Amino acid sequence: MSGCPFFEKRHLLFKNKLPSPEEDDASQAGDNKANKGGILYGEYLQLDKILSGQVLQSEVKGNKIHDEHLFIVTHQAYELWFKQILFELDSVREIFTRGHVRDERNMLKVNTRMNRIVTIFKLLVEQFAVLETMTALDFFDFREYLSPASGFQSFQFRLLENKIGVLDNLRVPYNKRHYRDNFKGHDSEILLASEQQPSLLKLVEEWLERTPGLEEDGFNFWSKLETCIFEGLDKDRDNITTIPDAEEKEEMKAEWVQKKEVFTSLFDEKRHEHLLSKGERRLSYKALQGALMIYFYREEPRFQVPFQLLTLLMDMDAPMTKWRYNHVCMVHRMIGSKAGTGGSSGYHYLRSTVSDRYKVFVDLFNLATFLVPHHWVPKLNPNIHTFLYVAECCDSSYGSSEDSDQEVV
Amino acid sequence: MSGCPFFEKRHLLFKNKLPSPEEDDASQAGDNKANKGGILYGEYLQLDKILSGQVLQSEVKGNKIHDEHLFIVTHQAYELWFKQILFELDSVREIFTRGHVRDERNMLKVNTRMNRIVTIFKLLVEQFAVLETMTALDFFDFREYLSPASGFQSFQFRLLENKIGVLDNLRVPYNKRHYRDNFKGHDSEILLASEQQPSLLKLVEEWLERTPGLEEDGFNFWSKLETCIFEGLDKDRDNITTIPDAEEKEEMKAEWVQKKEVFTSLFDEKRHEHLLSKGERRLSYKALQGALMIYFYREEPRFQVPFQLLTLLMDMDAPMTKWRYNHVCMVHRMIGSKAGTGGSSGYHYLRSTVSDRYKVFVDLFNLATFLVPHHWVPKLNPNIHTFLYVAECCDSSYGSSEDSDQEVV
Amino acid sequence: MSGCPFFEKRHLLFKNKLPSPEEDDASQAGDNKANKGGILYGEYLQLDKILSGQVLQSEVKGNKIHDEHLFIVTHQAYELWFKQILFELDSVREIFTRGHVRDERNMLKVNTRMNRIVTIFKLLVEQFAVLETMTALDFFDFREYLSPASGFQSFQFRLLENKIGVLDNLRVPYNKRHYRDNFKGHDSEILLASEQQPSLLKLVEEWLERTPGLEEDGFNFWSKLETCIFEGLDKDRDNITTIPDAEEKEEMKAEWVQKKEVFTSLFDEKRHEHLLSKGERRLSYKALQGALMIYFYREEPRFQVPFQLLTLLMDMDAPMTKWRYNHVCMVHRMIGSKAGTGGSSGYHYLRSTVSDRYKVFVDLFNLATFLVPHHWVPKLNPNIHTFLYVAECCDSSYGSSEDSDQEVV
Amino acid sequence: MSGCPFFEKRHLLFKNKLPSPEEDDASQAGDNKANKGGILYGEYLQLDKILSGQVLQSEVKGNKIHDEHLFIVTHQAYELWFKQILFELDSVREIFTRGHVRDERNMLKVNTRMNRIVTIFKLLVEQFAVLETMTALDFFDFREYLSPASGFQSFQFRLLENKIGVLDNLRVPYNKRHYRDNFKGHDSEILLASEQQPSLLKLVEEWLERTPGLEEDGFNFWSKLETCIFEGLDKDRDNITTIPDAEEKEEMKAEWVQKKEVFTSLFDEKRHEHLLSKGERRLSYKALQGALMIYFYREEPRFQVPFQLLTLLMDMDAPMTKWRYNHVCMVHRMIGSKAGTGGSSGYHYLRSTVSDRYKVFVDLFNLATFLVPHHWVPKLNPNIHTFLYVAECCDSSYGSSEDSDQEVV
Repeated sequence: MSGCPFFEKRHLLFKNKLPSPEEDDASQAGDNKANKGGILYGEYLQLDKILSGQVLQSEVKGNKIHDEHLFIVTHQAYELWFKQILFELDSVREIFTRGHVRDERNMLKVNTRMNRIVTIFKLLVEQFAVLETMTALDFFDFREYLSPASGFQSFQFRLLENKIGVLDNLRVPYNKRHYRDNFKGHDSEILLASEQQPSLLKLVEEWLERTPGLEEDGFNFWSKLETCIFEGLDKDRDNITTIPDAEEKEEMKAEWVQKKEVFTSLFDEKRHEHLLSKGERRLSYKALQGALMIYFYREEPRFQVPFQLLTLLMDMDAPMTKWRYNHVCMVHRMIGSKAGTGGSSGYHYLRSTVSDRYKVFVDLFNLATFLVPHHWVPKLNPNIHTFLYVAECCDSSYGSSEDSDQEVV
Repeated sequence: MSGCPFFEKRHLLFKNKLPSPEEDDASQAGDNKANKGGILYGEYLQLDKILSGQVLQSEVKGNKIHDEHLFIVTHQAYELWFKQILFELDSVREIFTRGHVRDERNMLKVNTRMNRIVTIFKLLVEQFAVLETMTALDFFDFREYLSPASGFQSFQFRLLENKIGVLDNLRVPYNKRHYRDNFKGHDSEILLASEQQPSLLKLVEEWLERTPGLEEDGFNFWSKLETCIFEGLDKDRDNITTIPDAEEKEEMKAEWVQKKEVFTSLFDEKRHEHLLSKGERRLSYKALQGALMIYFYREEPRFQVPFQLLTLLMDMDAPMTKWRYNHVCMVHRMIGSKAGTGGSSGYHYLRSTVSDRYKVFVDLFNLATFLVPHHWVPKLNPNIHTFLYVAECCDSSYGSSEDSDQEVV
Repeated sequence: MSGCPFFEKRHLLFKNKLPSPEEDDASQAGDNKANKGGILYGEYLQLDKILSGQVLQSEVKGNKIHDEHLFIVTHQAYELWFKQILFELDSVREIFTRGHVRDERNMLKVNTRMNRIVTIFKLLVEQFAVLETMTALDFFDFREYLSPASGFQSFQFRLLENKIGVLDNLRVPYNKRHYRDNFKGHDSEILLASEQQPSLLKLVEEWLERTPGLEEDGFNFWSKLETCIFEGLDKDRDNITTIPDAEEKEEMKAEWVQKKEVFTSLFDEKRHEHLLSKGERRLSYKALQGALMIYFYREEPRFQVPFQLLTLLMDMDAPMTKWRYNHVCMVHRMIGSKAGTGGSSGYHYLRSTVSDRYKVFVDLFNLATFLVPHHWVPKLNPNIHTFLYVAECCDSSYGSSEDSDQEVV
Repeated sequence: MSGCPFFEKRHLLFKNKLPSPEEDDASQAGDNKANKGGILYGEYLQLDKILSGQVLQSEVKGNKIHDEHLFIVTHQAYELWFKQILFELDSVREIFTRGHVRDERNMLKVNTRMNRIVTIFKLLVEQFAVLETMTALDFFDFREYLSPASGFQSFQFRLLENKIGVLDNLRVPYNKRHYRDNFKGHDSEILLASEQQPSLLKLVEEWLERTPGLEEDGFNFWSKLETCIFEGLDKDRDNITTIPDAEEKEEMKAEWVQKKEVFTSLFDEKRHEHLLSKGERRLSYKALQGALMIYFYREEPRFQVPFQLLTLLMDMDAPMTKWRYNHVCMVHRMIGSKAGTGGSSGYHYLRSTVSDRYKVFVDLFNLATFLVPHHWVPKLNPNIHTFLYVAECCDSSYGSSEDSDQEVV
C-alpha cells in the first residue's frame, strides 16, 4: 500500500521475546542491519511470485487477447481471499475443537474473526463489478484457450464449503458427477478429510447443546417453554370465542389452528429427526433449543456475545448465497443460457446451487417461524439469572492468556 | 471461482487461427488430450505461486501473530489490482501514443478500459473495510517484525502515479527525501523512465489540443467564445443599472465585477502560464480550450464519447483521492497521530498527500468555474456542425480492424 | 446536505430569461429580498412533509416499538428512489416515443439517464444492509400492527415494472390473485394504462428494428451473416474429418452438431415466434437482428453509444434481479420459510420472482449464445461503412437544441 | 418494498395487549374490517406527503431543468436518514442519561443501535455515487434558482453534530459567521439546547470514568500501569547498553528517549488538561484511563461488549469524516475551486471541515500511540478478575425488562 507507514519503524525495544540466535548475529552485523538489513516491502509480500503469475493462454497460443489479463487477476484475487477465509475459519474451528470456547474470553476472538469472514464475503460480492466490465464479446475471444480449466476445479472453494458445513448429500451434482471427481491425488484426499472433520456447523451444534439453562434438572428451558406456549395458545382460543363477528371469528380460528400446528411440530422430536434426515434441518434437536434460548434471552450479559455469533453465522450465509447468485447473473451475461442446445448448461447448474441446500445455517433463519410474544417466554428464576451473569473462570493461572492465545490460534 | 463454467468447454471449432504445430502434435496425442490434456484451473492461475506467498514474519521470528496473515493477503490483493490497473493504463497510453486514437473506432476501447480502472479503484476503496477488521491492538503485536519494510516501497503504486501524471515537483517529500530514494537498481531506473515517458495527462493534453473546432482559421472556438462572453457581461451590466433598489444594485455590481475578473483571467494566456508554472493548472492553454469546447458541445455525436472520457478521467481521480483519504483514516486508527512525539509522523505525511497536488486532472474539475448560460455559447455554423457528425475514416482497408486491434493492445 | 455550498450564491446575472412580473415585484421589495427573500433549504426540500411522515403504528396502538421507525424510514427511502427512477424512465421513454432519438444528439442524454437508473438500483441493493440491522425478534414485536399493509401494495414498484416491460402474463400470481387486485380506483387505472402504453422494452425494440444496415435492399446484414456462419460451419466440419484420433473426432462431431443446431435455430423465424409466444424471447425477430448487428460492429463510431445503451439495459436488469434476491434473503431472515405451515409462504412466492420471467432484457443476455469468431462476421462494404460514420442531422435549425431539450425532458 | 410480505398477515392472536376500545369498535364493524379495515401500505408510509414534496424551482420559474429532480430527491433521502440517525442517537443517549446503562443488559441495545448508525453513515457515503451522475454542466443550469437556500441550513445535520459532540469552539466559522446564525426562532433554540445537553461524547466519558478497576483503593489500574511501563522502559535501556554496534546503539537510544517522552506525557495530568483546553484531547483524564483499561483487558467477558462500543464509536467517526471528504470532492466537481476569485470559497471551507476538529472520538484513535507489549500490562489479581466476570444485577424484579425497555427507548 503506497505510503503506508504501518511498519516503517523499527521497534526492537518492544520485543517481548529474547532475540533468537540469528537475530543476534544480525545485530552484530552492525550498519549492515541498520541500513540495509531487515525485510523490504516487495520481499515481505513475495511480489516476485504474486506479480509473475499472470500468463495469458491466448498469448501463449499466439493470439493475445487483452481482457484475459483481467480474467486471471480477478480469479487470483478471489483465491487469495479464499485463502484468508480458510485461515480465519480454521482458527475459529480450532478454538471450538480444543474446547477453548469454554473459556468465554475467547468468544471475542471468535466473533471478531467471523465478522472478518463476513466482511471478506461482502467484498467478494462487490468484486463482480470488476469482472462485469468485460463483455460477453470480449470473453468469447479467449474462452476457447482455457479448456478444460474450469471454476469447478477451485480446490479452496470446495474446501471452504466443507469446512463451513455444506453437506455432501445436499450438493447438486454437475453433469451427474460427484464434485470430488474434479480433483485428484492429494487434493482429493484433503477434500475427503474435510468432509470427515468437524465442520463449523457441527462445532456450533455441540456448543449450542451446552447452552446453560437447557439442563432438564436445572432451569429446563424447553419444557418450560412448551408449557408457556400452549397456555398462551389456550388463552388465545378462549379470546377468539368472544369475537362477535362470525366471519372474523372463522378467520381467527383457522389462523389459530395453523399456529397450533406450527408449535406442535416444534415440540415434536420425531418430526425434527425426520426433517433432519431430509436435510431440511441441520442442527440437532438440543442445539435448536439452545439457539432459541439464546434468541429469547439475548439481552442477558452472558448471552449477548453468543447472540452476536448466531447473527454472524447468518451474516456469513447470506453473502455466500448472494455471491452464488451474482455468479449466476454474470455467467448468464457471459455465455447466455444456452437454451435450446442439448448438453447440460453451466447457467442452469449454477442457478440450482442458489438454494437453501447450500445455506448451512438455514435453521437459524427458520427459527423466525417460532417467535412468540415476550410474555410467553418463561421467566428466569433467580438461580439461572445469576448464572447468566457469572461465567466460570476456566484457567486457574490468569495472565497466561497471551501464551494460551498463541497456542489457540 | 467455484462452479464457474466459463471455460468448461472445448471450443476448438471456433479457433480463428490455424492450429500451431504443437497443437497438431497435441491433437495427435489422442486420448491423452481428451482426458488429461489442456490446462487445469490451478495451473492456469498459477495458484502454487499465488497461494504460497504468505510467510508471516512473526512466525519466522517465533511468535506467530494471527492477524499478520490478513495484513499480507490484503496488501497482496492491492498489488494484484495495481498490476491490472497498470496493464489497462499501458494499453490506453499505447493507443494514444501510436496515434490510434485518431481512428475514432478506438475510443470505445479507451473508455471501456478507463471505466475498468475506475471500477477497480472503487473496489480498492471498499477493500479497506477488510483491513479495518484488525484493531490497533492486533496490529501492534506484529508491527515490529516488519521493519524496515514500508508501503512507501510499493514500486507499482509509484509507477501508477507517474504514468497517470502525478508531477515529481508536486510530490510531498517524506522525511525530506525524494520518493525515488526508496528504490534501487532496476526499479529506480524504471521509475525514472516513467517520469520521462508521456503520462496519460500529457497524452490527453495532446489529444485535446487537436479538438476539431479550435482551428483559428476555421470555427475558431476560443475567439468566438471570448466575444460571446464579454457581450453577455456587457448586457448584464446594463441590466444592473436598471435595478431600482440601491443596496441590491451594489451587491449585483460587486458580483458582476468578480465574474468579469474570472472570465478576464480565463482569456489571459500569460496568467495561464503562470498558474501552470505553479502547478495550479496542468493542461496547456490549447488543451484547456479543447476541454471546454467538448464540455459545451458534448451532445454533438462526435463529442459524446470524448465527453465521457473527460468524465472518466475525473471519475478516476476522485476514488484515487478517496483511497488516499481512507488510507489516512486507517493509519490514524492503527498508529495514532503520534502528536507530541518528535520525529515525523506517517499520519501527518499521508494527510498532506490528500491534496489537489495529487489530483492529476484537477483542471477538468476546475472548469466548473467557467461555465456560462447556453445562450452565451457560440452557435455552430453549418460547416463545423457537419464536421462534428462526420469523422475521417482512417484506415483504407476496413476489415483489418481485428488485426490492428491486436497490434494496438 | 450539511455545509453544501451548492446553491449558496445568487446568480441573478446568469438568468437566461427575463424576470417574471412576480420577480420584479420581489426585487422592488428591496432589503426584504436581499436578506430574507428567496427560498430556504428546509422549504425547498419541503422537509415539513418529508420529516413528519413517520408515524409508528405500534405507538398509535399504545406499545411503541423502537425498530418500527427504521422500518418506516427505510421503506420511505425506497419509495423516494422509486419516484426518481420513474422520473428518469419517463424522460427516456418520452425521448424514444417522440422520435427524438432519431436525432442522435439525444443519445448521450438517454445513456446518462439509464446510467443514473442503474446507479440508483445499485444503491437500493446496498440499502438492505441498513434494514438487516433489525433482527427477526425486533421485527416480530411490531409486525402485527401493520396488518393488512403489505409491500405488494407498492404502487410505484408495479408501475416501474410495467414501464420497463415486465409482461403481465409472465408475472407469478400471489395467492392466485392478479397483482392489480391489490390496487383500487385511480391507482388501478394508472397501472392498467401503464401496461397498455409502450414500455421501454417496446420502444427499444422499435429502435433496434431501425438499425442501419438491416435493410434487405441495402447491406442486408442478416442474410450476409447467415451465409458467413454456415460457410464457417462447413469449413469446421471439413477440418474435423482430418482429426486422426477417433475418440476426439467423435467428440468434435457431437459438438459440431450441437453448434449447428444452435445457429440453425437462430435463423429460423418460426422458432423465434414460438419462443416469443412462450415468453422465452421478448424482442421481435428484426430487433434481435439489430442487437446482434450492434454487438458485432460496436466499435464503429455510430454504434459505440448504441452499444453502451444495450449494455446499460443489462446493467439495469442485473441489479433489479439482485434486489429481488436480496429481498428474498431478508424476508427469509425476518419471517422464516414457514415450512410446514399450510397457507402460501411469502418467502416462497418471492423466490419464484427471482426468475428470468422478470428479466426484461433477457434476450440481450442470451445473445451471448450466438457469438462467432471475428472472421465469420460479414465485412462492411464501403457504403455501409461511410454510413456508420455519418448520421443524418435531424434539426434544420441548430441552436434550438436547448429549447427542444426542454420540450423533450 | 415490492412484494414484501413482511406485514401481510394479521396476527391478532399474538397481541400482547388487550384490544383498545377503538379496536373493539372496528372489530364489530365486521366485514368492513376484514376486507377494507386496517392500514394500507401507502397510508402507513404517508406516501402522499413523501412523494408530493418534489417541487422544482426551475419549473416554478418557467424553465424546468430535468436534473433538479435528482437534486431534490437525493437531499430528501439524506434528510430522511439523518432523522433515523437522530432517532437512534437519542435512544442511546437516553439509555446513558437515565443510567440504564448500569444494567449491562442494555449494552446489547446500545451496540446494536450504534452499529445501525454506522451502517447508515456508510450508506450515505455510497449515496454520493447517485448525485455524481449529475455533471457540473447539468447543475449549472438550475443552480441560480435555488438561492439563497444552502446546505448550511440543514438543521438536522447541525443537531446531529451537536448530539454526537462536535464542540462549538472547534467549528470552523463560515464567512466569519457562527453556524447558528443560519437558523432562526425555534430551530435556533433547539440547536442551542443541544449544545447544552449532554452529548454522546459526554455520556461516554462519564461511563468510561466508572470503568471497574480504576478505583484507587481497589485494583488501581492507572498507578499499576505507570509502574509497569517505567519498569519496562528501564529494562529496555539496560538492554540497549549491551548493543555492540555504536551506530545502532545511538539510534536505539534516540528512539528510547522519544518513547520515554511519550509515556511520561501520558502520565502527566497537567499536560492532559492543557491538551484538553486546546481541543487536542476531548475526554477527561479518568475517562482516558478507562478507555485504555478496556483496550488492554478487552477479552475479559465483562469488557468484550464495552470494547465493541469503543470500536463502534470510531466506526461512526470514520464514515462521518469520509462523508465530509466525499462531499468536498463532489463540490469541487460541481462548482470548481473558484481559485482566483475573491469571495470565500465553499470548496475551501468544506475542505477545512475535513479535520480532526470534527472527529469527536479522536482520543480513541490516538490511544494507538500508547500501546505496550502484553507483558507490560498489569496482571489482574483474583479480586478484579472475578469482578470482571460478575456484573451487578440492577433490577430486583426480573421479567419486567420488556416494560423497562419501553420506558427506556
